[in-house]
Amino acid sequence: MSRIRLVIEYDGTDFVGWQLQPEGRSVQGELEAALADLAQRSVRIHGAGRTDAGVHARGQAAHLDWTGRLGPEELLRALNARLGSDVSVIDAQAVPDGFDARRDALSKCYLYRILNRPSPSPMRRRATWHLRRRLDLGAMQRAAAHLVGERDFEAFRGAPGGPPPGQGTRRRLDELDVRREGDECLIRARAQSFLRYMVRNLAGTLVEAGSGRLDPDQIPAILTSRDRSRAGPTAPPQGLCLESIDYPSLTP
Amino acid sequence: MSRIRLVIEYDGTDFVGWQLQPEGRSVQGELEAALADLAQRSVRIHGAGRTDAGVHARGQAAHLDWTGRLGPEELLRALNARLGSDVSVIDAQAVPDGFDARRDALSKCYLYRILNRPSPSPMRRRATWHLRRRLDLGAMQRAAAHLVGERDFEAFRGAPGGPPPGQGTRRRLDELDVRREGDECLIRARAQSFLRYMVRNLAGTLVEAGSGRLDPDQIPAILTSRDRSRAGPTAPPQGLCLESIDYPSLTP
Repeated sequence: MSRIRLVIEYDGTDFVGWQLQPEGRSVQGELEAALADLAQRSVRIHGAGRTDAGVHARGQAAHLDWTGRLGPEELLRALNARLGSDVSVIDAQAVPDGFDARRDALSKCYLYRILNRPSPSPMRRRATWHLRRRLDLGAMQRAAAHLVGERDFEAFRGAPGGPPPGQGTRRRLDELDVRREGDECLIRARAQSFLRYMVRNLAGTLVEAGSGRLDPDQIPAILTSRDRSRAGPTAPPQGLCLESIDYPSLTP
Repeated sequence: MSRIRLVIEYDGTDFVGWQLQPEGRSVQGELEAALADLAQRSVRIHGAGRTDAGVHARGQAAHLDWTGRLGPEELLRALNARLGSDVSVIDAQAVPDGFDARRDALSKCYLYRILNRPSPSPMRRRATWHLRRRLDLGAMQRAAAHLVGERDFEAFRGAPGGPPPGQGTRRRLDELDVRREGDECLIRARAQSFLRYMVRNLAGTLVEAGSGRLDPDQIPAILTSRDRSRAGPTAPPQGLCLESIDYPSLTP
């Protein structure tokens, strides 16, 4: 048996999300079906974290225990031959037996892409949120500066129901960068872990600031209020992509 | 009446191509349907050139004569409100009455994108040709150097049937640039006009050189032979995008 870490890219458009659900196509479900077909028995795959319906990933990570004779590189090829065109294993590596994709993650990096021009873009419609009116980047950057650091993000937690037991709503947001690139406004967020919907709620709130509907200097009061209704709306899923997950180097 | 120049972006995946066909969804057909709905009469749109089934555009151009009361900017908005998500008018400008989108084009720029890594990319599958084995860029660049300039491109003309009457197969290829950008190999081609399938045949031939199946220095002999079977295969449509069309400045 050997433990394998996979890096996975997917187009979230036609998925109910990463996690296996009673109904609907999930990324985890597709991967486990491909693994089962290959191993002729059921194989569990453990993701670094969930992504919600419609959210993309260029660098999701997961681990699994593999007893077949294929090495990591052959496993990658065999899985890709069995997966639909909207999921792809882009890296596979043997890792120590104790490795855990979720617990060992040092940081996750998400990118939220906003197409900010008058007309929609057919080529980028699956990967951007289209906003016609020009955003004020300076206001977004001022709002972002108030959000970086260790904070209670209760006001930016959009999941229905409470947080998982034993986990609070304090997180350390290491980076929240806003920049323009051509006709897009890009928001990059990095943290060891995020609350559910947190990145989309941050993006929606920064857009409120960039649209003049929210004074950036209200952010500290919104954080303190712990009141979800005072932060901005949840930005739509298609603009969000889990870009990468960092792990400690595997070489001693 | 005023003549209007449109710039159009489209995702070619679900189109039979630019040009109106007896059957199937064409970009021209979608635009003319939106114009007819708006004007309550039929309006002809004249493209700068065709693109084939599955080929994309970020900067196709066309002209039309408009008698409605909407100005160019309102026309753009009204058309986009009537178009599906895979076509978008990204610019509309009043031009002199004599303007002709095809005849007045100074140059067209196409980009062919090759994803050059072991695993496929779900996010880029609609816009790239996936080639697993690493291409030799140097060989592709040497082959490209033989193709730039005024040449008889008969060997790179893949359309069934002959060329349109009165048009030869000599063209002046102003640029054929090959470079690597991340995990992609990008081929940029610029000319005043191209033969049908020419860019995809050039891309397919450069890939033969980059894969070691064709000596770059055979290109002059292939050109001289005027024999389509000696050049490389036609690269698939989804990697190709009509990026932009240059026109003389409208300001005197």
